[in-house]
Amino acid sequence: MKLWEEDFSGKLRKEVSEFTAGDDVLLDQHLVHYDVIGSIAHATMLQKIGVLTKDELDKLRKSMKHILKLNAEKKFKLSVDDEDVHTKVELHLTRELGEIGKKIHTARSRNDQIILDTRLYTKDRMLEVEEELLSLCAALIAFSRKSDIPMPGYTHLQKAMPSSVALWALAYAESLLDDLDLLKAAYALNDQCPLGSAAGYGVPVAIDRQMTASLLGFGKVQNNVLYVQNSRGKIESVVLGALSQVMLDLTKMANDVILFSTDEFGFFEIPEEYCTGSSIMPKKRNPDILELIRARSNKVFAYYHQTIGIIKDLPSGYNRDFQETKEPLIKGLETTKSCLQMATMLMKDLKVNKEKLMKSFTPEIFAADKAFELVSRGVPFRDAYKEVEYNFIALEKSNPDRTIRTRKHLGAPGNLGIDKVEKWLQKEQSSLQQERSRFASRVQALVA
Amino acid sequence: MKLWEEDFSGKLRKEVSEFTAGDDVLLDQHLVHYDVIGSIAHATMLQKIGVLTKDELDKLRKSMKHILKLNAEKKFKLSVDDEDVHTKVELHLTRELGEIGKKIHTARSRNDQIILDTRLYTKDRMLEVEEELLSLCAALIAFSRKSDIPMPGYTHLQKAMPSSVALWALAYAESLLDDLDLLKAAYALNDQCPLGSAAGYGVPVAIDRQMTASLLGFGKVQNNVLYVQNSRGKIESVVLGALSQVMLDLTKMANDVILFSTDEFGFFEIPEEYCTGSSIMPKKRNPDILELIRARSNKVFAYYHQTIGIIKDLPSGYNRDFQETKEPLIKGLETTKSCLQMATMLMKDLKVNKEKLMKSFTPEIFAADKAFELVSRGVPFRDAYKEVEYNFIALEKSNPDRTIRTRKHLGAPGNLGIDKVEKWLQKEQSSLQQERSRFASRVQALVA
Amino acid sequence: MKLWEEDFSGKLRKEVSEFTAGDDVLLDQHLVHYDVIGSIAHATMLQKIGVLTKDELDKLRKSMKHILKLNAEKKFKLSVDDEDVHTKVELHLTRELGEIGKKIHTARSRNDQIILDTRLYTKDRMLEVEEELLSLCAALIAFSRKSDIPMPGYTHLQKAMPSSVALWALAYAESLLDDLDLLKAAYALNDQCPLGSAAGYGVPVAIDRQMTASLLGFGKVQNNVLYVQNSRGKIESVVLGALSQVMLDLTKMANDVILFSTDEFGFFEIPEEYCTGSSIMPKKRNPDILELIRARSNKVFAYYHQTIGIIKDLPSGYNRDFQETKEPLIKGLETTKSCLQMATMLMKDLKVNKEKLMKSFTPEIFAADKAFELVSRGVPFRDAYKEVEYNFIALEKSNPDRTIRTRKHLGAPGNLGIDKVEKWLQKEQSSLQQERSRFASRVQALVA
Amino acid sequence: MKLWEEDFSGKLRKEVSEFTAGDDVLLDQHLVHYDVIGSIAHATMLQKIGVLTKDELDKLRKSMKHILKLNAEKKFKLSVDDEDVHTKVELHLTRELGEIGKKIHTARSRNDQIILDTRLYTKDRMLEVEEELLSLCAALIAFSRKSDIPMPGYTHLQKAMPSSVALWALAYAESLLDDLDLLKAAYALNDQCPLGSAAGYGVPVAIDRQMTASLLGFGKVQNNVLYVQNSRGKIESVVLGALSQVMLDLTKMANDVILFSTDEFGFFEIPEEYCTGSSIMPKKRNPDILELIRARSNKVFAYYHQTIGIIKDLPSGYNRDFQETKEPLIKGLETTKSCLQMATMLMKDLKVNKEKLMKSFTPEIFAADKAFELVSRGVPFRDAYKEVEYNFIALEKSNPDRTIRTRKHLGAPGNLGIDKVEKWLQKEQSSLQQERSRFASRVQALVA
Repeated sequence: MKLWEEDFSGKLRKEVSEFTAGDDVLLDQHLVHYDVIGSIAHATMLQKIGVLTKDELDKLRKSMKHILKLNAEKKFKLSVDDEDVHTKVELHLTRELGEIGKKIHTARSRNDQIILDTRLYTKDRMLEVEEELLSLCAALIAFSRKSDIPMPGYTHLQKAMPSSVALWALAYAESLLDDLDLLKAAYALNDQCPLGSAAGYGVPVAIDRQMTASLLGFGKVQNNVLYVQNSRGKIESVVLGALSQVMLDLTKMANDVILFSTDEFGFFEIPEEYCTGSSIMPKKRNPDILELIRARSNKVFAYYHQTIGIIKDLPSGYNRDFQETKEPLIKGLETTKSCLQMATMLMKDLKVNKEKLMKSFTPEIFAADKAFELVSRGVPFRDAYKEVEYNFIALEKSNPDRTIRTRKHLGAPGNLGIDKVEKWLQKEQSSLQQERSRFASRVQALVA
Repeated sequence: MKLWEEDFSGKLRKEVSEFTAGDDVLLDQHLVHYDVIGSIAHATMLQKIGVLTKDELDKLRKSMKHILKLNAEKKFKLSVDDEDVHTKVELHLTRELGEIGKKIHTARSRNDQIILDTRLYTKDRMLEVEEELLSLCAALIAFSRKSDIPMPGYTHLQKAMPSSVALWALAYAESLLDDLDLLKAAYALNDQCPLGSAAGYGVPVAIDRQMTASLLGFGKVQNNVLYVQNSRGKIESVVLGALSQVMLDLTKMANDVILFSTDEFGFFEIPEEYCTGSSIMPKKRNPDILELIRARSNKVFAYYHQTIGIIKDLPSGYNRDFQETKEPLIKGLETTKSCLQMATMLMKDLKVNKEKLMKSFTPEIFAADKAFELVSRGVPFRDAYKEVEYNFIALEKSNPDRTIRTRKHLGAPGNLGIDKVEKWLQKEQSSLQQERSRFASRVQALVA
Repeated sequence: MKLWEEDFSGKLRKEVSEFTAGDDVLLDQHLVHYDVIGSIAHATMLQKIGVLTKDELDKLRKSMKHILKLNAEKKFKLSVDDEDVHTKVELHLTRELGEIGKKIHTARSRNDQIILDTRLYTKDRMLEVEEELLSLCAALIAFSRKSDIPMPGYTHLQKAMPSSVALWALAYAESLLDDLDLLKAAYALNDQCPLGSAAGYGVPVAIDRQMTASLLGFGKVQNNVLYVQNSRGKIESVVLGALSQVMLDLTKMANDVILFSTDEFGFFEIPEEYCTGSSIMPKKRNPDILELIRARSNKVFAYYHQTIGIIKDLPSGYNRDFQETKEPLIKGLETTKSCLQMATMLMKDLKVNKEKLMKSFTPEIFAADKAFELVSRGVPFRDAYKEVEYNFIALEKSNPDRTIRTRKHLGAPGNLGIDKVEKWLQKEQSSLQQERSRFASRVQALVA
Repeated sequence: MKLWEEDFSGKLRKEVSEFTAGDDVLLDQHLVHYDVIGSIAHATMLQKIGVLTKDELDKLRKSMKHILKLNAEKKFKLSVDDEDVHTKVELHLTRELGEIGKKIHTARSRNDQIILDTRLYTKDRMLEVEEELLSLCAALIAFSRKSDIPMPGYTHLQKAMPSSVALWALAYAESLLDDLDLLKAAYALNDQCPLGSAAGYGVPVAIDRQMTASLLGFGKVQNNVLYVQNSRGKIESVVLGALSQVMLDLTKMANDVILFSTDEFGFFEIPEEYCTGSSIMPKKRNPDILELIRARSNKVFAYYHQTIGIIKDLPSGYNRDFQETKEPLIKGLETTKSCLQMATMLMKDLKVNKEKLMKSFTPEIFAADKAFELVSRGVPFRDAYKEVEYNFIALEKSNPDRTIRTRKHLGAPGNLGIDKVEKWLQKEQSSLQQERSRFASRVQALVA
């Protein structure tokens, strides 16, 4: 039974109840762990300010640690009769501890509690996404080291200039590392403790907001209690916006690999263990996982869009619409994580067909080089351009490998800066590990 | 085991398999009924052209009708080991009938089969959505009949002119009836039989496409076999686009009712059985279902957006990306249907506060009328406008009821045309019933 | 000076004035013609109901016909000082006719006037878009007739089965003809006369709404005066949704042609007069117009998205937000029209490289056919599938041309139904011409 | 004439030429200044590496500084015959300096040049947007200081708890300051010098990329030359994503102010100099600028959406589609800037109606407080909740002002932390001024 329901004399219609619940039971299952962690911190603070006695806190902590254990064993399942994760946890406590269980909701509201849960959940998931992103970068760097092979460079999907497989792969590594900065900016925005906002207007109780924020390892207290509510959905959209950039990179990479693995291009070969077959065409080997990564990027974009849409025109303060921001957030984080994992696996095993690559170098790829050569002999660029244009037939195929080595400036095929990118990656890896440890040790201390 | 899998010597990685499956098991459960119906029609045609004997067809039909029965009793459950609904059904047949079961996949592919399934599913769901839409229109008309009460008309959310509750409600009825035309256009586009496209390039078997289309009650055969594949996702997006228009109306209606039910406006009262409470504020009555309808419209918009995104840049022919169009379609239809149902329930019970409505009429609402009055006495409009402007203080509050009756032209508060709208509704209801019966009787004949 | 401005004693801040004007001056220039046409119809009705004398009407008509002439000669230019097209026209009339000019605004508001203008504008532009769409279909049919050449059919962008250039091209023709139905549904929705809604609540004057609707060639009067306002942006979004489907087809076609014109595929050749060059790579020929068609589809999608976003959460009745729906509508129609034109030009001149097409047929394309052959000899499909799978190496390249002729069922490469599609096209062409004439003759009668 | 055009023997069709040009002439006008700045830096580097002599550089610099001067005086106008800004500038140089003018294009491409131009343009505009954002924060803080008045706090748009005008306003200030972090993250991503990427594959010339980056005040060289091209549109979308968050805040604020300025709420009054009138309703005062801010947020969201859509499925390397990312970027930045300016002006002049605010406090607003009071006397929260529920009628209206002072924890109405927020603002202001000076002084040194 819902907490506020008794006074309604059971008036609420069943259809209304089902409609409002939506998929909450499934979604809130992801939040049980965080709801309990948050409640332990809240109770600890309530004891400090005198709302709970030491003994009451001990009992609550013990009971909540038991929920954590049950949940870890997948034995704390929400059912359709539970309103949501908060009610489920509170009823569990009340059943076990009676009056004491009722006290834990003092000075908070489900409105700040759910924000707390999703923020903690988001921190954990974002750190995982960041780790997967760095794994993919590592795979791309390893792939580049073993595949520093010439490849035609395209503009307008037409062969344009000499390039290399390593230049192609490292372009993605650098792009993903840039995405990491966006993920970190989103992480920082999310790293604000909402507890104490209550329904959006604070509570007439002298709570210690800094204490709960510190106990839970938050970067800071989110100050204005109304802004806490107004930022719901907003911060989720910022997270989804950062994830979208990751998905954009994966989509582009997937498109390239699909194209370069066609019979017509033939530069890459996707190993059989990543391909599925056809029920009508024997011997078909299809790049399904790349197509699904590409398709699922649209899921993440749509979640962003949906979240912005939900909050865009809401009046200040809490509105029930916010409930609908949970699904896009949770599924957006999960989708991005799984796509990163698949991309990493594939990049570790992707095969390069050197023979086909070398064969693909046709004379026109060297036209610009020929023009530059004339320039280096003192011909003005525009004149060199024209000379090559008029003598196109005479262009001969040059040595691709030697040609890409002539591009020696920063970031060119002959000067990729792999070591520099690797150092960048290592720095990010170590800073990520630091944050993960910091956050984990706070939570550890709380449930010790 | 997957049909094409044996030759891969179990090479496919487990992670790849899980990733590619996605939520198909859950989604395909919605399609079992349609997959079987489609297979019966296909088998019937195969017998006619001599691929199956009469006896083989009889056995297949019997076995498939059994699946329909199991499915109706919720006993035909897909599990994670089943690749998808097609494989599940085919394996069931093969297990029961051996060689015969294998023959049913002749001259078709999972590529046209899944399109067939979703088209049939869509027809059924759209007819339900249309029925719910008409129920809401009926509720709005009934509401208008009993609430032909003056209400301020707003522009820029500022009181502007005399209006009425009935004008407000009927505006939605007419809008929804216009949406119905869009739903019907989408329905017609979807009402094309894809069977025979196979993997997108037809089959070297003399199949009778017109026959399967007729058996399944389709409006026509979708001719070009490549277009069949290219239209996947496209037709889904058209359906979602039409649903979006319905959701737009519901959102606007929800916003209006939420606003008009505030303490400040007070025109409407949402009955308690539609409200939920607060865990921190006793006695709070919140319009949650309206907020959720409003929020969920963004789900439907996002599904549209996602579907367009998935297909937008795909090359011609089948691509695995299409799998991801199932979820938005299925959930988009379900979301719209449930929101329509809730809106109808609410409109039946929504209370109007006549007293507050009458009190809300302040003198400025009559300013334009005053100007028109001067015009009717021969003053040019612009001069009348200025006279009212300069003598604003002297404006007196008129009788709202009498004032709205002075607007007698078509569609004005004094000439709403309720009977006309009701006749329009009845015409649509009868045409909908006709289409529902037609479709149902075809399916009935098939499984008789 | 703005009509309502005198009483503000010039209080409105200049920055506010500029901000609110936005790009209206540029956009409203597109609407001058329709604003005047609408005003003539309105005046004609006002005379009939006695608001204007016969003489006043004659003077107004003469003056307005002069504006039409000036506008046709591009001499009726809006400047930043004009508030909008309505004020510009009205001031022109007032300056020429004094008191009479003031009378024309009787019983209407800028709120219904602008809706009238955009509806009339939309009708004209949509008819043009439909004509361009049919021209593209005609070009595709002509292209198919002269290019009934084998081409590999792809699934997952991997060679799959024998197909043909004609099948590929006609898939687009059929898709575009389906789009036409959506355009017509949108056209019908837009074909409702809003005049008489005024500010959304009608007028206390016995206007004849049916008369103005008929004079202007509208399909019907849009009944409910509040719905008229509520449908602003909504109908625009329906139009943009239909245009989006056209752009989706063009995008897919552009992607295919870009891919098939690469050196690696080589099936098509884009003539030089459609290509642009490179400032750094001499001899480069780039498919820029196809890339721009592809990119500009996103403009139309974004306009749809923007329009939905603008209206999504507005309260009932007029809100200033509506002003922002003009740009997406106008630019969406123009973008689609110009992209259709370019696509048609290109399809008329696109060259097919038969030699490369024939060379591209590798043995695996015939694997499914081999399996079907076994089936036709009585082998169950699944066994045939496996046999081909195990004996893949032995597969020989068959004759592509002969193979596609074996697919004789409806819509297959051997039975494209070109004549049927052409008849469909002709039916649509004649129905379009009928509607164009009907609409043009009404407008003609009005300004005669 | 276009640079690459001579060899095409004038083959390019006029329609193609017009279609490809699009709105480039108008858009590139915004980029002239940055194109020239970038060219000066490039030439300076070319001289250093020996491609230009000292004398040639001097001549080029002189000529380019002249263009800067002409442009500042609005005398360097692009016309439809100019292909784009790069060609226009180069032709100017060639006309003035002959052979020397041709040399400046050595070792670069229009592909990296346009990226350079938009990055520099974006830096300047983003710094302006940030400044406007901080001005709005300052206005909100000033408004809070003078309006620390009780206001009902809403949840579900229903009166819920005591709040204050200052809490409401400061929620926006904090939200905007959080947005600033997103703008800064986007700024940092954009602050990478693309020069040297050329067409995406570098140049066979020993250019000094670090030198040009430093001369132009960039934070770093964007290393991988292919990533430079792949990041086009991507970085633009990140910028638009950050701007979208600003627009989200403005939209919410606009919605609140519109609602709170209705006759029904009456908390705020928008001064007349910000209102426009009605052509049919004398004495109407409409919040047009707020409605337009709200509507235009959808423009920025749509630009984001459009940009993501354009780049989402492009293959690696330059594609002509990128041209279409200029308009959303330029107009997105301009729209956000002007909306911020209007919001700031309005917040400086917005009036608060204290009397109406005090009157709006009805007893139910104090229900939760009553419950908390019981809790403070030792009653468990859930029991207190029920007691208030059952004795609702007896609830008396409390003193709102005193009540909000009882919320003393961080960020609550009784402890807003205005000074803290102001310090935060000042820190941001000073860091912004530092970056603006740094960037300006670099550009200054370049053109000295």
